[in-house]
Amino acid sequence: MSLVVVGSIALDTIETPFGSIADGLGGTAVYFSTAASIFTRVSLVGVVGDDFPSEHRAFLAGRNIDTTGLVVAPGKTFRWKGRYDYDLSVAHTLDTQLNVFSEFHPTLPDAYRNAQYVFLGNIDPDLQLEVLNQIQRPRFTLLDTMNFWIEGKRGPLTEAIKRVDAVTMNEAEIREYTQMYSLASAARKVMELGPRVILIKRGEYGSVMVTREGTFIAPAVLLEEVKDPTGAGDSFAGGFMGFLARAHRIDVPILRQAIVHGGVVASFTVEDFSVGRLAQISHDELSHRYAEFQHMTHFEAIHSSL
Amino acid sequence: MSLVVVGSIALDTIETPFGSIADGLGGTAVYFSTAASIFTRVSLVGVVGDDFPSEHRAFLAGRNIDTTGLVVAPGKTFRWKGRYDYDLSVAHTLDTQLNVFSEFHPTLPDAYRNAQYVFLGNIDPDLQLEVLNQIQRPRFTLLDTMNFWIEGKRGPLTEAIKRVDAVTMNEAEIREYTQMYSLASAARKVMELGPRVILIKRGEYGSVMVTREGTFIAPAVLLEEVKDPTGAGDSFAGGFMGFLARAHRIDVPILRQAIVHGGVVASFTVEDFSVGRLAQISHDELSHRYAEFQHMTHFEAIHSSL
Repeated sequence: MSLVVVGSIALDTIETPFGSIADGLGGTAVYFSTAASIFTRVSLVGVVGDDFPSEHRAFLAGRNIDTTGLVVAPGKTFRWKGRYDYDLSVAHTLDTQLNVFSEFHPTLPDAYRNAQYVFLGNIDPDLQLEVLNQIQRPRFTLLDTMNFWIEGKRGPLTEAIKRVDAVTMNEAEIREYTQMYSLASAARKVMELGPRVILIKRGEYGSVMVTREGTFIAPAVLLEEVKDPTGAGDSFAGGFMGFLARAHRIDVPILRQAIVHGGVVASFTVEDFSVGRLAQISHDELSHRYAEFQHMTHFEAIHSSL
Repeated sequence: MSLVVVGSIALDTIETPFGSIADGLGGTAVYFSTAASIFTRVSLVGVVGDDFPSEHRAFLAGRNIDTTGLVVAPGKTFRWKGRYDYDLSVAHTLDTQLNVFSEFHPTLPDAYRNAQYVFLGNIDPDLQLEVLNQIQRPRFTLLDTMNFWIEGKRGPLTEAIKRVDAVTMNEAEIREYTQMYSLASAARKVMELGPRVILIKRGEYGSVMVTREGTFIAPAVLLEEVKDPTGAGDSFAGGFMGFLARAHRIDVPILRQAIVHGGVVASFTVEDFSVGRLAQISHDELSHRYAEFQHMTHFEAIHSSL
């Protein structure tokens, strides 16, 4: 079913202990749509500058991605420069050049407006509201955000949260937004605003989903080789939403499978820079790693004799 | 089946954002044996000073704990003073007084020497070797350690590791000991020394077990209320070993259940200071939380249609 993503498109220059890349294809909308397109067709909304390499555009169009909503604006593409040390959970930003992204106002092509599934990437909450105003009757909307908006745009952020079905934040973000330490309590507080699915990201440790029906604790795939953690969260969201849109059913068993698929997809992303590995995932590899993960997390019920 | 624990017995003075305690009953051997005694009889080896309150001794003896190996030495009991801030994963040590513990040489009562299950708490590896020399033919031995011994007693520590069946360390410790970042690779390196079970603790995120048969990724129970994280790791080890000793079977399904039991027991420990909550766990509460946790972590296999 139709899935729309709105978010950044970037050229990333990254250094990790395991290598580096200059002006690699990145950004939320790129990781998300590359991941989601494994499962379903994705409609991308974003902006690039007139310096955006044609091979990157060709890469996106060559996948199951509709780039009608990809605007080319005069100027330079959004650039991010960062470094990771051995603690790969911490990104050190060296330079951010918003460029054309600073004037971005998402305009959805007519064909996108009846989308059933929508991912609002981590952008200004006012822009997230603009997107929601352009969508007719979505079935499942997921909103991502970060400390910058929690601190600087709390009002619009809360308005946007009230209008979506699902919210994703990491542990620190949901604690900051709700001022509660317990993740379960924090999730319930966000649910009181309206959303029925709260997806708390815990980096390499996995995630927790809280719904009215209960809690799902999902560990993450144990990584043997990490080259660059950039894009893991957005790939996770892409795998999650792509799977949901393909299943076209929203219930707890499907949501749980979607989360595990998101985690499995993200585990490929970090094995290489940019979308190098993510773009190569075959269906066989995906289902193999899913099955392997299920085996690695299974344990039996208590023996009644004990 | 007979289970021996060797480790510290302490009087802890602790402050957390949720309260405080002065001279509370603590230490590895206390948390371990209180937890393990839920499942089986435990034989304790440790030392206290002549100031050790009689009610603490009565508490231990009143459980399923053999205190024949509890030595009273002239002097003061080991004392630890610490503080936790909102990041409950980091303990700030304010004061450590080893007292009688500094001269501790574990001597096993004769009746302990044919023990089948042995837990070597985090003490000087030379003492861990002394204990192993006194045990006749154990079936399953688990060794815990920490950065202090990894850095200062690497040789004896490696000798001790070569002689046990299982090793437990946290993520930072196994990375430091093996100089490898990947947990799976690090675990394999420790297994090359002899142990067949490597149990990597990840604090509030759970644990990972690596054996020759494969990897088990166990998330932790999601905590609603944490008052004091002290003793979580030792309670985890106690629940794990207590369950194994009771099952008296060592295979992957039992090891996995033992890990989950360890995590469930530890989730009670942190709900109060000292062994306040741990000592009150009923079998019903335990099996209820186990079943709840199983429900919270379950997900289905992939639909073949997707």
